[in-house]
Amino acid sequence: MTASYAPLQNDTFLRACLRQATSHTPVWLMRQAGRYLPEYCATRAKAGSFMGLATNVDYATEVTLQPLERYPLDAAILFSDILTVPDAMGLGLSFAMGEGPRFAKNVRDEAAVAALQVPDMAKLQYVFDAVTSIRKALNGRVPLIGFSGSPWTLACYMVEGQGSDDYRHVKTLMYARPDLMHRLLQVNADAVALYLNTQIDAGAQAVMVFDSWGGVLADGAFQQFSLAYTERVLSQLKRTGVDGQVVPRIVFTKGGGLWLQDMKALDCDVLGLDWTMNLGKARALVGGEVGEVRGASMSGMGKALQGNIDPNILFAPPAAIAAEVTRVLDSFGQPHTDITQSGPTQIFNLGHGISQYTPPEHVSALVEAVHSHSRAQRR
Amino acid sequence: MTASYAPLQNDTFLRACLRQATSHTPVWLMRQAGRYLPEYCATRAKAGSFMGLATNVDYATEVTLQPLERYPLDAAILFSDILTVPDAMGLGLSFAMGEGPRFAKNVRDEAAVAALQVPDMAKLQYVFDAVTSIRKALNGRVPLIGFSGSPWTLACYMVEGQGSDDYRHVKTLMYARPDLMHRLLQVNADAVALYLNTQIDAGAQAVMVFDSWGGVLADGAFQQFSLAYTERVLSQLKRTGVDGQVVPRIVFTKGGGLWLQDMKALDCDVLGLDWTMNLGKARALVGGEVGEVRGASMSGMGKALQGNIDPNILFAPPAAIAAEVTRVLDSFGQPHTDITQSGPTQIFNLGHGISQYTPPEHVSALVEAVHSHSRAQRR
Repeated sequence: MTASYAPLQNDTFLRACLRQATSHTPVWLMRQAGRYLPEYCATRAKAGSFMGLATNVDYATEVTLQPLERYPLDAAILFSDILTVPDAMGLGLSFAMGEGPRFAKNVRDEAAVAALQVPDMAKLQYVFDAVTSIRKALNGRVPLIGFSGSPWTLACYMVEGQGSDDYRHVKTLMYARPDLMHRLLQVNADAVALYLNTQIDAGAQAVMVFDSWGGVLADGAFQQFSLAYTERVLSQLKRTGVDGQVVPRIVFTKGGGLWLQDMKALDCDVLGLDWTMNLGKARALVGGEVGEVRGASMSGMGKALQGNIDPNILFAPPAAIAAEVTRVLDSFGQPHTDITQSGPTQIFNLGHGISQYTPPEHVSALVEAVHSHSRAQRR
Repeated sequence: MTASYAPLQNDTFLRACLRQATSHTPVWLMRQAGRYLPEYCATRAKAGSFMGLATNVDYATEVTLQPLERYPLDAAILFSDILTVPDAMGLGLSFAMGEGPRFAKNVRDEAAVAALQVPDMAKLQYVFDAVTSIRKALNGRVPLIGFSGSPWTLACYMVEGQGSDDYRHVKTLMYARPDLMHRLLQVNADAVALYLNTQIDAGAQAVMVFDSWGGVLADGAFQQFSLAYTERVLSQLKRTGVDGQVVPRIVFTKGGGLWLQDMKALDCDVLGLDWTMNLGKARALVGGEVGEVRGASMSGMGKALQGNIDPNILFAPPAAIAAEVTRVLDSFGQPHTDITQSGPTQIFNLGHGISQYTPPEHVSALVEAVHSHSRAQRR
């Protein structure tokens, strides 16, 4: 399948993902289309609910583009939720006003696990339609990132039925019945792979796996129950998109800094980091060398790094934001500048989603500081 | 000041804290006196409230000893709360039924920070009386651990006014007004040092600093706003207790695994770890060598390690608990066994407080597995 989309005008993000030299450090923000923007709240009010917003192609397109109108961001990300896949499995996702997500059914016993299947992608057509619509609306301005929750992160919500502060139920299943947990994670991994591949076919130019809850696992359990199934997803992903371009893969494990060396073996291009990890140390561990040549697989190769400023910096005055942006860029150090070689690169981002309480003008200060200081770094 | 307490019958915990060889790996559990025990709930019902329990010397003594009646634990820990110090500063601590702690006042502006002072220890006399009462009631059975929240962790609650999932207010103060945050942390550090020294005078045989929220900080901010003030506490602590014995110091930063090398410089004897950190890696980083001799200060010397099983393992059947205990003990590896030398040691614990939903009989399985497998390791 090929599609005719407008040529890309700003490929900085995609180049950095592939460890290619760029004139500045690209920046986008997790949850950049969100409640901190009054225009987002206005669209959501029209839609009536979060799922009303996410399932309507026009609304999803509108809110995805809103932050790009305000800020010179270097990438767009599909507006959707990480829990669309278990919803399509029949668990019944809803968002009560002012609360987090909740499933009508949870998955805690042998019968519930046995009933799980990779869902029919037709149930997720609204997502793929949104991807195509957004890609068209972007008109080549910046690349579009598709995404999914990781198999383990989806499992957390599926077993708990909602968010949790102790992950008691999902860990009870994992420790008491690892056989059931493995079966659940296999279904999730195959579903996530199909979901991301269908997003790629619909026009996504990069894909990101959000392992939001990998960091709650014990050392040992993380490798077995989260990392192995992220790898199972990656092993099934298409390498190129509808326009024949490489589709970079980003893996972000919140709280995963201790396991970076394990994550280096993932067949992905970019590792996302939260603010607890020093970027210079991460670069030394997994950032690779200049000139390291890509083979058929990314496994074990140097990774681009994405992150990792604390989103709470956005509550400080603009001068403090700029100073912290400088500190974070400098902690990564000078990105390589040889356009004939691959080498260490950073994609600037927050270490977690932007807070709904963020003053929108502070985001301008952050984006401006990333672009200006990262240009200065290269001079 | 000297006091006449019964001689210690089981010094395994204190020996392991000081990196001395022991016949088994000592074990105690964070929050071991707690709601998972029906006898605790009965005492709490008599007391009427959590603070009613914590401020009554007889009740506090009773609940501290309850887990020792059920399990052959190697240490007792004062029953109290980490927020007694800010309560004594006049912030008004309360615990609503089924909810976490809450302060009547919070500390978010220049005036509120300026008003803070190291509290009169007379306001905390109920804590010191409990320490003495518990020490007497223990009658030399096992050592008694005193404790406090870390300066940063206390600051989190003082600024937020309650628990938080994003630490928005405390981080706003930190990023926007670092001068105020430093002043707040100085007061906290001096208050915590005085509080722990008074516990030592009252009979505490080891002290632990709970940096429960250090792990929410960004790399860089952790060193500046948490670690530096933990060090300020340690630098003021007495080295010996009322009976002339060394009082080991334990520092536990939840989520602090990435900063272990920074923490090695702390003037403490033991570092606590949560379950995300591999104990073998931690031992290689900070566990020190056999024969490393202590100087006047612990700063930079090898540390004993405390931890680090996931408390959720206690929801699995006893056989799975025993298998995971074995895995955790083996991840640390063989403790040194030369009684003429110091060397790497472990104190077994959970990586966080025990859940209120834990079946009490599963704790028996855990303690039994620690004692039996750690004896087998030494054969």
